[in-house]
Amino acid sequence: MTTSVGAGRTPSHGGVGAVASRFAHFDTELTLQSGASLPAYVLAYETYGTLNAAKSNAILVCHALSGHQHVAGFRADNQNDIGWWDNIVGPGRPLDTDKYFIVGLNNLGGCHGSTGPSSINPATDKPWGADFPVVTVSDWVAAQARLADTFGIDAWAAVIGGSLGGMQALQWTLDFPQRVRSALVIAAAPKLSAENIGFNDVARQAILTDPDFHDGHFYQHGVRPLRGLRLARMLGHITYLSDDQMAEKFGRRQRAGAGSYGFEVEFEVESYLRHQGDKFAGVFDANTYLRMTKALDYFDPAANFNDDLAAALAPATARFLIASFTTDWRFPPSRSREMVNALVKNGQPVVYSEIDCAHGHDSFLMDDAHYHAVIAGFLRQVGS
Amino acid sequence: MTTSVGAGRTPSHGGVGAVASRFAHFDTELTLQSGASLPAYVLAYETYGTLNAAKSNAILVCHALSGHQHVAGFRADNQNDIGWWDNIVGPGRPLDTDKYFIVGLNNLGGCHGSTGPSSINPATDKPWGADFPVVTVSDWVAAQARLADTFGIDAWAAVIGGSLGGMQALQWTLDFPQRVRSALVIAAAPKLSAENIGFNDVARQAILTDPDFHDGHFYQHGVRPLRGLRLARMLGHITYLSDDQMAEKFGRRQRAGAGSYGFEVEFEVESYLRHQGDKFAGVFDANTYLRMTKALDYFDPAANFNDDLAAALAPATARFLIASFTTDWRFPPSRSREMVNALVKNGQPVVYSEIDCAHGHDSFLMDDAHYHAVIAGFLRQVGS
Repeated sequence: MTTSVGAGRTPSHGGVGAVASRFAHFDTELTLQSGASLPAYVLAYETYGTLNAAKSNAILVCHALSGHQHVAGFRADNQNDIGWWDNIVGPGRPLDTDKYFIVGLNNLGGCHGSTGPSSINPATDKPWGADFPVVTVSDWVAAQARLADTFGIDAWAAVIGGSLGGMQALQWTLDFPQRVRSALVIAAAPKLSAENIGFNDVARQAILTDPDFHDGHFYQHGVRPLRGLRLARMLGHITYLSDDQMAEKFGRRQRAGAGSYGFEVEFEVESYLRHQGDKFAGVFDANTYLRMTKALDYFDPAANFNDDLAAALAPATARFLIASFTTDWRFPPSRSREMVNALVKNGQPVVYSEIDCAHGHDSFLMDDAHYHAVIAGFLRQVGS
Repeated sequence: MTTSVGAGRTPSHGGVGAVASRFAHFDTELTLQSGASLPAYVLAYETYGTLNAAKSNAILVCHALSGHQHVAGFRADNQNDIGWWDNIVGPGRPLDTDKYFIVGLNNLGGCHGSTGPSSINPATDKPWGADFPVVTVSDWVAAQARLADTFGIDAWAAVIGGSLGGMQALQWTLDFPQRVRSALVIAAAPKLSAENIGFNDVARQAILTDPDFHDGHFYQHGVRPLRGLRLARMLGHITYLSDDQMAEKFGRRQRAGAGSYGFEVEFEVESYLRHQGDKFAGVFDANTYLRMTKALDYFDPAANFNDDLAAALAPATARFLIASFTTDWRFPPSRSREMVNALVKNGQPVVYSEIDCAHGHDSFLMDDAHYHAVIAGFLRQVGS
């Protein structure tokens, strides 16, 4: 829900003003790709802007590994809690709330209000923990489609996401071709590489082997696998940044009092990574993290098409924007071009933009003028 | 020490035949860069070939993070225990034992027979553990110089190493210019990048936060921080291989019975990394690992020269071979070119070879014909 910006508040952040999450309850069983099913579940979401009478101006924002429904604006009870993609959503911004009705949600299996491993399992009256099923990108899209139904939205004007969020945008065009007019697939890949999976597995092993993990049932033990989650996030952060950006941001600068010939923090980069790791471990759920990385690993729409990505993407009728960033080494431009080439081969409408931005994989979150102009320009063609 | 190859044994591996480690005892105090000192210490070493009368044909092989003194041949009690760089050492091989006297050692702080954290601290009669000082590349070179003294070797014909070993070869030319006629600096860098340090710090944090680490005094607790060491090695392995090589070696292949929607091994790359991690954790010392990575982080000969690498390298009188590998993303060719450019600027003799080899950072260990020809050709110019 959207509230107007408070007088005197700078519109540079939180352009849509104070917001609050809502919760949609679903009582129809959802069968997952794994064969498991959820008899009922909740999705936490936020919306910004106004749905028009034709219900034709809705845009779905899909989040990446650690994202959630708080995409834009600030929380009414905490003005400093700005949405994770606030720079792109608001009046006059690329996802223009004067024109579009924007929906952000927390995916199934998440830890920000949607049903997930830290939710109570009605069958046991205890947290799901390890018993919460593994969910896939297709499962998320199926759950998101039901959320669209609650608004009476037959088709999204656009589905947009970066990284794992971009994979959901792509999956929408395959699972519900008629329900998505355009897809913005940013800093993504049509499937993970062996190296990508390797990094994910190290992160998972850090969590799974943390003695405080207790096979995923740590909630009952009054502990959390903070060590493992911290390591996973530290490692993740290295892969989100570019080598050049890290060099510029930290270089080999040492903190005051360094040169200790010990194992305390010495280099600035160590301080940054440990801080990021600690911050994340303090708020994120380890079982959610495991499932988010697994969804990444499993994503591979071409798998059932003999690895022929063009054949896999053929059912899509959406217009595509595929965007990549020159310094992203997690999902480099070559991975985006795989999707572009498949769409071109099929004669499907696609715009490709390779954006020169220094921030590595994290570029998709940045307030970069060229990048934002690309998104705004593409959406103008799509209309509302 | 060298023994001739047993009749009937294929010379393709273990060309120098059965070997055994020797141990040099030093009773003269060694003051380290940190200010700490070791009153006495042992270095484990092996030699291959024969030292000539002029003692002018000696080559020192420096090891990288997890290496040791067993460079070539096979252990008399285990023919399958082949030296880690056997493919380059032996009769007719690039480090030709018919011409050269080759010395391999385990560095100070190691865990293969040289004095290190798992050795007994004479002051306490317990393992050194956390009390073993942090050692630097310069400290290793100082210890290696004393080992040279025991052989009566005034100057090495060559000092050679890959990765952290290459850094030692470079440091030799600065700390003892008159004692090294040539240096082969392979797959190295003049200092670590912020990203390199970041990866090292994640690995160290995995060890330091393992509950079985006990602040480095795990020996007395009858446990070892296997979880942390395993994670450190898994992560290391990703950075040793190239993305392309991992794609070729593992791709997205899954193991039989995969698709479990759980957290057991599914992808081949997971199986490989976990196996490598387990194997390493079973044999390596965690305190040694911490110190080896710290030596990498600290290495920065230009630090005292206002970051002017040419000024730092000016004292060297050795002839240099700098070699890099196209697919090495840990220390890519650009890092080697920094050293080449500094030497060229100074008018110092340097040969640079950028070798097209698919094996990423690990290429320096591979039996690649072009690579080996480059080393052999360079050494022919150096003479013995």
